[in-house]
Amino acid sequence: MAGFFIAFEGPNGVGKSTQLRRLAVTLRQQGWGTIVTREPGGTPVGEAIRDVLLNPDLEIDPLPEFLLYLASRAQHVRKVILPALEAGQVVLTDRFAGASIAYQGHGRGLNLEFVEGLNRRVTGGLTPDLTLLLNLDPAVGLARVGDLRRNEDRLKRADLAFHQRARDGFLAVAASDPSWVVLDALLPEEELALVIWETVREKMGS
Amino acid sequence: MAGFFIAFEGPNGVGKSTQLRRLAVTLRQQGWGTIVTREPGGTPVGEAIRDVLLNPDLEIDPLPEFLLYLASRAQHVRKVILPALEAGQVVLTDRFAGASIAYQGHGRGLNLEFVEGLNRRVTGGLTPDLTLLLNLDPAVGLARVGDLRRNEDRLKRADLAFHQRARDGFLAVAASDPSWVVLDALLPEEELALVIWETVREKMGS
Repeated sequence: MAGFFIAFEGPNGVGKSTQLRRLAVTLRQQGWGTIVTREPGGTPVGEAIRDVLLNPDLEIDPLPEFLLYLASRAQHVRKVILPALEAGQVVLTDRFAGASIAYQGHGRGLNLEFVEGLNRRVTGGLTPDLTLLLNLDPAVGLARVGDLRRNEDRLKRADLAFHQRARDGFLAVAASDPSWVVLDALLPEEELALVIWETVREKMGS
Repeated sequence: MAGFFIAFEGPNGVGKSTQLRRLAVTLRQQGWGTIVTREPGGTPVGEAIRDVLLNPDLEIDPLPEFLLYLASRAQHVRKVILPALEAGQVVLTDRFAGASIAYQGHGRGLNLEFVEGLNRRVTGGLTPDLTLLLNLDPAVGLARVGDLRRNEDRLKRADLAFHQRARDGFLAVAASDPSWVVLDALLPEEELALVIWETVREKMGS
């Protein structure tokens, strides 16, 4: 594959999109054709699926939720990621298959082998050349996006426990996969951007 | 399971919804609590997924298309079908897992073992007590819903070939599964309703 595939993973509110945009600017300045995309989303079908997943009026069970993420991912890989990589571009995605292992597997409790097997199936075995995990205590991340301002104590605790399981899941994947790099999301934005650029430059061998 | 689960399968334009509604009326007259539902759809999440699947502006690849049907089915089974069956109701659904074997497997060419395996997974092994296949030459069915009125000959032929593979798929499933009954969709509406009621009454042993 001529291009280079980078995924950003980590909890909501951790600054993934900001860092992803900064990295895209740097890469383009260095002459790399770079596309920025996201999951769920990244295609018209994926964005329609994203609207379903993020609709606060819909209660979605863990299994159909996972299948919706997979549907978005299947279209994303075929229509956006693979064509861009084949054209020699750098692809930066805000979340990818690792998020399903963390959130749907570790977080919601779906069988991990099932989650990993379907991930492999819908990606056709495609994995990022580099995954940048922006690591953060979920309590800090949730406070950043305001989730902890809610009054419902029960929901708050359930959310926090869910996000803590997901974080453990992210760290477990990172520990077992050398293409993952764990970064401290509490670093100042400038400093984190520098660390990310050094990591990417080294991995791309340029 | 206290209730009874009946699926209607067959091509578009074959009169499934009409016969399904007639059967519901008859069942209720006989004192059976009866719910009428459909796939994709049947739940708020499923109906949102249906809108994505039926949106003519979206081009959806076969794999994500199948995953969307599965997501709708997973929610449908858990939130509607199983609770109704446990409450002793008769559940009539316009399409179920068999449609994925016919359309996504035989029609779109997805691996049949993969389709059947995921069907089993998302239904938790639940299968209809009776599936009524309204069988019709696809060319006749497509003409009924007006698809053959289109000008694009290429698309027309592709559609017809696709629907013919799907019909062969339906007949293959029906031939291997004794809970499927094949009915001639060209029978007059009244007569077909009578045949369906006789079939259902016999299967329900009432």
